[in-house]
Amino acid sequence: MTHDVNLRIPGPTPLPDQVREAGSRQMVNHRGPEFRELISRVTGRLQAAFATRNEILIITASGTGGLEAAIVNFLSPGDPVLAVSIGSFGDRFAKIATAYGADVTKLDVEWGHAADPARVAQELRAMAGNGRPAKAVLLTHNETSTGVENPLAEISAAIHAAAPDALLLIDAISGLGAVPFDTDGWGLDVVATGSQKSWMSPPGLAMISVSERAWDAASRASMPRFYFDLARARKSLTTGETPWTPAVGVLFAMDVALEMLEQEGYEQVFARHAACAAAARAGLSGLGLRLFADPAHASQTVTAAWVPEDVEWSALNKQMRTHGLVIAGGQDRLSGQILRIGHLGSVESEDVVEAIQVMGDSMRELGHEVDVATAVGAARAAAQGVSTGGARRAPATAVSGA
Amino acid sequence: MTHDVNLRIPGPTPLPDQVREAGSRQMVNHRGPEFRELISRVTGRLQAAFATRNEILIITASGTGGLEAAIVNFLSPGDPVLAVSIGSFGDRFAKIATAYGADVTKLDVEWGHAADPARVAQELRAMAGNGRPAKAVLLTHNETSTGVENPLAEISAAIHAAAPDALLLIDAISGLGAVPFDTDGWGLDVVATGSQKSWMSPPGLAMISVSERAWDAASRASMPRFYFDLARARKSLTTGETPWTPAVGVLFAMDVALEMLEQEGYEQVFARHAACAAAARAGLSGLGLRLFADPAHASQTVTAAWVPEDVEWSALNKQMRTHGLVIAGGQDRLSGQILRIGHLGSVESEDVVEAIQVMGDSMRELGHEVDVATAVGAARAAAQGVSTGGARRAPATAVSGA
Repeated sequence: MTHDVNLRIPGPTPLPDQVREAGSRQMVNHRGPEFRELISRVTGRLQAAFATRNEILIITASGTGGLEAAIVNFLSPGDPVLAVSIGSFGDRFAKIATAYGADVTKLDVEWGHAADPARVAQELRAMAGNGRPAKAVLLTHNETSTGVENPLAEISAAIHAAAPDALLLIDAISGLGAVPFDTDGWGLDVVATGSQKSWMSPPGLAMISVSERAWDAASRASMPRFYFDLARARKSLTTGETPWTPAVGVLFAMDVALEMLEQEGYEQVFARHAACAAAARAGLSGLGLRLFADPAHASQTVTAAWVPEDVEWSALNKQMRTHGLVIAGGQDRLSGQILRIGHLGSVESEDVVEAIQVMGDSMRELGHEVDVATAVGAARAAAQGVSTGGARRAPATAVSGA
Repeated sequence: MTHDVNLRIPGPTPLPDQVREAGSRQMVNHRGPEFRELISRVTGRLQAAFATRNEILIITASGTGGLEAAIVNFLSPGDPVLAVSIGSFGDRFAKIATAYGADVTKLDVEWGHAADPARVAQELRAMAGNGRPAKAVLLTHNETSTGVENPLAEISAAIHAAAPDALLLIDAISGLGAVPFDTDGWGLDVVATGSQKSWMSPPGLAMISVSERAWDAASRASMPRFYFDLARARKSLTTGETPWTPAVGVLFAMDVALEMLEQEGYEQVFARHAACAAAARAGLSGLGLRLFADPAHASQTVTAAWVPEDVEWSALNKQMRTHGLVIAGGQDRLSGQILRIGHLGSVESEDVVEAIQVMGDSMRELGHEVDVATAVGAARAAAQGVSTGGARRAPATAVSGA
């Protein structure tokens, strides 16, 4: 294991020692030259990681605060909005828009599945046909609650074709930084992520890119906002500041974490996450668990699986904790029914293999018959298959019997 | 100096080594047992420091986010509100209420002065007389932009007498923890503070206490809210969680910082801040600077003084920085006109004396005639006067000639 406790939840993620050390630096004046250099360097690094020339604003909040900022700055009460939800976090994005008075049409996709680009386009055309064309589409990149990654390039293209004027507001909290992502190439207007996910940093900051046409919309948007007012953040950034006191320590940490990711190289970072995901899928299948997500759209950062019928989640979770393994359960209606392994940020495939080993051992200790050695072997082989140039996303079923 | 750089701004404040170390601990599951214990311990410690039996909610945001939470949870658009402003932060509190549609009556007090309880009461009676009684009063405890502490006990009593139904929403960001404060005794409904002020912790968390009658108002309040929804925070706290991923590292840090403050004892913490404030006032006066705040209501956590006519602030600031001293300038309309020394959190009177020494040396280096030794002596004597049981808030004028 890379860390003492194998923290395998989809955020907060384990911090590399250099990142922890950077986060513990002594405070500086947030309106002084050190901070100006810091925020300039971090936003520059993020622009490269987002693949965007858009400005990136950093706000002190969790990812949910980032989602609120992505809504309240660009919409007015009554604006028709299409919210595409494939899980809990898609639901949350829609709820925020509703709370601020948007006229939300919800497209609910069966949990475990990705959104279908054609279906999204159809819904947008229907809204336009009903005389209320969508001002924006709310879309989740990587749904943490189900372990599904939406085909964002394809969905974005379908949205641009069906509703060229609609803003694309993207929850990229738990995927961006771990998988290929092209903010400008895909025409994404607003993209929000969070420091504690792929970015190997502590929680406390949300980072949001904003396109020119989104700024244009912002100048007309009338939803109330103050703390999350990104126009203020944009103005402060011109002098290397933030409107309100930022979480300076988290920014120190993220600066170093981004440098580490750059040194590793994002292509290698993506391959590492793919290897971890392959290991998780193969290992869980090897332990006899049924994967929750459609294999064609399985997430590279979090893997969900059904808890076997004869296993009690809380007992298993407790047993795993005695071995230092911390994973996540299901959220909302999936509570107690699924379990989730996070494999994002500072993670190696051996961390996932170790998690499979501990989960298998724990199941045995609770009296279940599982072939732990075979599952661990399958996990390791799947990871190697990816890292030696195998399929980027090998279907778990092909590996589970290895 | 306690720290390498003498960071003497009114937040972020220097962090004790133990606090920095705690803040760099490895991440834990924010929905697991370690976090439950952590948040329970921290909120318990804060209740003691706030002197309240009310629940305390911790949100991931700067103090301004705390102010927004203090408004949007308890008011509806159109609600008449009295905003008592004695500076920039009072103005900000009022602006947030306006942004969310409150019907704000503003009572502007001349900067440098505290609010007059009788004047506040008079305004509340006038509002009631005009058929729009205030639903709430927005009030700043310690105004960071001017270095003035409002007589909160007296103003609160006047408000309760003049408008018994009005909620008291208090910005206590930069004072609470450093001076005697009695949330329940003074009948304060909502009190917000921030981790990077007196609490010797990094920025990133706001802490807010909520009275029963404020919760009652919250159930009827219709301002839109999601991220800052304190009812959600209250519900999550019953299971030792927060609704959204919190800034875990800042919470680790604050846990240790609060323990240190408790071990020192709050009476001693208050005396230490009083000594630092006395040193700042005496030292600045000794350097020939005119203090900005009414001496009767001078802040114990930040001291503002006019920049002398023949001194250019930016040149002085630059010179002081070469000696490792970082202080703050004026905000908004006071930019370039005043300077401010922060003396809150992890600060000893010798840090302030050192700041006076460096400021005096810097002025001399820039060609100004000042008697640095006398100013330093006055600062030290003023601090000792307080710490040996002298007047808690000795008028600076009485000491400046020492």
